[in-house]
Amino acid sequence: MRILGIDPGLQTTGYGLVDYVDARPRLVEGGVIRGGASGNLETRLHAIYTGVCSVIREFGPTVAVVESLYSQYKHPRTAILMGHARGVIFLAAAECAIEVAEYPASLVKRSLTGHGRAGKAQVAAMVAHLLGLATAPEPADVTDALALAVCHASPARRIAVPPTAPHHRRARISLPDEVHR
Amino acid sequence: MRILGIDPGLQTTGYGLVDYVDARPRLVEGGVIRGGASGNLETRLHAIYTGVCSVIREFGPTVAVVESLYSQYKHPRTAILMGHARGVIFLAAAECAIEVAEYPASLVKRSLTGHGRAGKAQVAAMVAHLLGLATAPEPADVTDALALAVCHASPARRIAVPPTAPHHRRARISLPDEVHR
Repeated sequence: MRILGIDPGLQTTGYGLVDYVDARPRLVEGGVIRGGASGNLETRLHAIYTGVCSVIREFGPTVAVVESLYSQYKHPRTAILMGHARGVIFLAAAECAIEVAEYPASLVKRSLTGHGRAGKAQVAAMVAHLLGLATAPEPADVTDALALAVCHASPARRIAVPPTAPHHRRARISLPDEVHR
Repeated sequence: MRILGIDPGLQTTGYGLVDYVDARPRLVEGGVIRGGASGNLETRLHAIYTGVCSVIREFGPTVAVVESLYSQYKHPRTAILMGHARGVIFLAAAECAIEVAEYPASLVKRSLTGHGRAGKAQVAAMVAHLLGLATAPEPADVTDALALAVCHASPARRIAVPPTAPHHRRARISLPDEVHR
């Protein structure tokens, strides 16, 4: 199973690919897709979309994993802009016919460290350890993406998710009846 | 000049096309693109993206007009989901190499009715009047999209925008240095 973790951002979208072999994660590739520092919104989104499509086509993952949406955001406007990036990433997955899985940050942390409120450094150290790296990859967006990929295949994640839940948790955002403003 | 107004939503994305001939708007087409009531997020976004692309290819507008983001939203989570739809619409515009213009709701209302706080019914009545229709198109998403298209070419909009501003206001969202959560 080849898993693509993605950490969406308009400036920097981190990605990380992990194979799961003999119940152990193996790093395949990690990197960032840059939306460009000066482009307008549509140019940035186009760069992210084509970047994600090309990663999917080159490495052939069977699933893309992103963090679930929070119920509250400290910076709602920034979160809406992140939603634009997330939108074109979901579209790229749909275009390439690969599944999308979403996990809450707390589940990612718990499956890697045993604690749902683990700090960034602790999660990064576990990502490095599990993938046999001396240090966690830089920038942090890559490590965050790898944490999602590792979480997806982790036995601890499966224990953390109630056994009645489907193995792959698909985009299960509850859509309000009316999604307009 | 052919203008495409778009009102993004995951369930219903309204669109309206207007030609500007002899300083008068003329209705070309209006309709909705449905994301599907039961599909997952990626399926809905794919439907919106392909729908917007096909409208652009069929009618050949030179510009797509959307409402600017607000600084505050009553329902931030719904706004983030709307951001996903908006993201794939911007992407469709980039793919088809057409410009994107954004106007605040208050400017759209002021350019149509003279009042930035005009009610929905008043704006809808003016859309119908300016396009020579007996009643405003249903559902409201189509009328909202047409209001954006009419606003773009309206002389009142140009007066309302400071004369130093560029004629076409491109995606001028101020991007924070770091757009991650």
